[in-house]
Amino acid sequence: METIIGMPGKQRVIAAACGTTLIGERINPTNRRSFSAELEQGCLDTVAQEALRQQEAGAHVLDVNVGAAGADEVKLLPQAVQAVMDVVDVPVCLDSANREALRAALRVYPGKALVNSVNGEEHSLRSLLPVVANHGAAVIGLTMDDNGIPPDVDGRVRIAAKIVREAEACGIPAHDVVIDPLTMAVATDSQTGAVTLQAVARIRAELGVNVVLGASNVSFGLPERVVLNAAFLAMAVYAGMTAAITDVTNQALKKAVLAADVLVGRDDFSQRYIAAYRADQSSS
Amino acid sequence: METIIGMPGKQRVIAAACGTTLIGERINPTNRRSFSAELEQGCLDTVAQEALRQQEAGAHVLDVNVGAAGADEVKLLPQAVQAVMDVVDVPVCLDSANREALRAALRVYPGKALVNSVNGEEHSLRSLLPVVANHGAAVIGLTMDDNGIPPDVDGRVRIAAKIVREAEACGIPAHDVVIDPLTMAVATDSQTGAVTLQAVARIRAELGVNVVLGASNVSFGLPERVVLNAAFLAMAVYAGMTAAITDVTNQALKKAVLAADVLVGRDDFSQRYIAAYRADQSSS
Repeated sequence: METIIGMPGKQRVIAAACGTTLIGERINPTNRRSFSAELEQGCLDTVAQEALRQQEAGAHVLDVNVGAAGADEVKLLPQAVQAVMDVVDVPVCLDSANREALRAALRVYPGKALVNSVNGEEHSLRSLLPVVANHGAAVIGLTMDDNGIPPDVDGRVRIAAKIVREAEACGIPAHDVVIDPLTMAVATDSQTGAVTLQAVARIRAELGVNVVLGASNVSFGLPERVVLNAAFLAMAVYAGMTAAITDVTNQALKKAVLAADVLVGRDDFSQRYIAAYRADQSSS
Repeated sequence: METIIGMPGKQRVIAAACGTTLIGERINPTNRRSFSAELEQGCLDTVAQEALRQQEAGAHVLDVNVGAAGADEVKLLPQAVQAVMDVVDVPVCLDSANREALRAALRVYPGKALVNSVNGEEHSLRSLLPVVANHGAAVIGLTMDDNGIPPDVDGRVRIAAKIVREAEACGIPAHDVVIDPLTMAVATDSQTGAVTLQAVARIRAELGVNVVLGASNVSFGLPERVVLNAAFLAMAVYAGMTAAITDVTNQALKKAVLAADVLVGRDDFSQRYIAAYRADQSSS
């Protein structure tokens, strides 16, 4: 299935055949004190800078999260989307659980956005899916529900199927649902990486929808986190992941995904891999 | 299945639960002019140095290949095995297609060796399996036969099954056969990486035997080969590879395998990953 987002003429197709979609994660004030302080004061300079920097680094989509502690998301999210559109033309991924903020941001975005995210909780589905449907957006669905995150593959696949079903009931076609089977820290549970990878493979095989992962959680609490994150991204591509929410400005992570695309046959004649290598050479 | 090689008290168990077995590839004169010249003159200094260096770098098994152009393998291979045993205590992998050289080396090695390799060609099976069986050794089987290397997964699995069957007919149990489904260059065929990875998964699922890969061929002709090789090794671990023939002195490659072991749940509490990190820190 293809999830097509963005503005006419500037769309991104999320599909294995197009290579893994890189969703830049850096417009996010979590654990960034000065960025948070800026947002609280309504300043969008860092938002614009991170947008430019990530597009230059090869991001296909930009996650936009302005959920800083003291910030007014309903006001800020549409402003941030506008600030991003003013400097780059890649599609946005609206990262909020605040329905009014999402609604306001969807109103200002003239293309088809990706909403990040709903989950399997009744409240989340009832509150957010109609908003996504009304604006003809696509949506990321996290495989957790009112009972938390299932520790097993079956549980994650079951919630993924439920989200796809509920989305379809609201008028959102399955090809506009992207499932995130959730990455947890292997330091606290040795089997959790394998569970997530197997969930990726089963969701792809059984539901056929696109699958996205954020890789960085997996290495929490361990040394040399980039080594683990890069290996996990490569393995996830083989398992069937079609989009990654990651720091595209980190060369090791970006290259791991581009290399994995080559290795599973998603990059004919290694064109994208070689182009990225050349861009890297000419910029250094 | 477990493939147990080496000398009593100093054995290596090849099995997923033990973590990926790292087979050091550096005792090999291919493309190394001065090493080749040394071997031609019967000098084993580099053999001993590479043995020590690779054991220190974390190799679990050492591949021993002395097939330099002008070298007398029948004389040199047992000498090289002795030179390795004089300095390290990890098991050896006898890398030759020369039956007499293998026979001579197996005679001097007091433990259970791994022979690298037979393939599905009638000549190879008839010539080498009896030697392996006579010495109670284990053997690597390459998935190629008189028709070459099959371009498809089915063909590789079929040859793997044939090698296991022929080995058993010679008295070599399946747990002593390690299959190498062969890694080719993605630069010449975009789908070949995926074929090899799928062959790994199917051989593990259908035959249950251990699977080994050499990763470096995959990146031939492309830039930043280590990035591709590291990603491929990580993906192969997820596919089910249980041993890798690689340059263990290359930190990026070794770490990719150790990270992949953590991520698929082969390294409880990330003990080996953390130990390798600490060893690395204290040596630098």
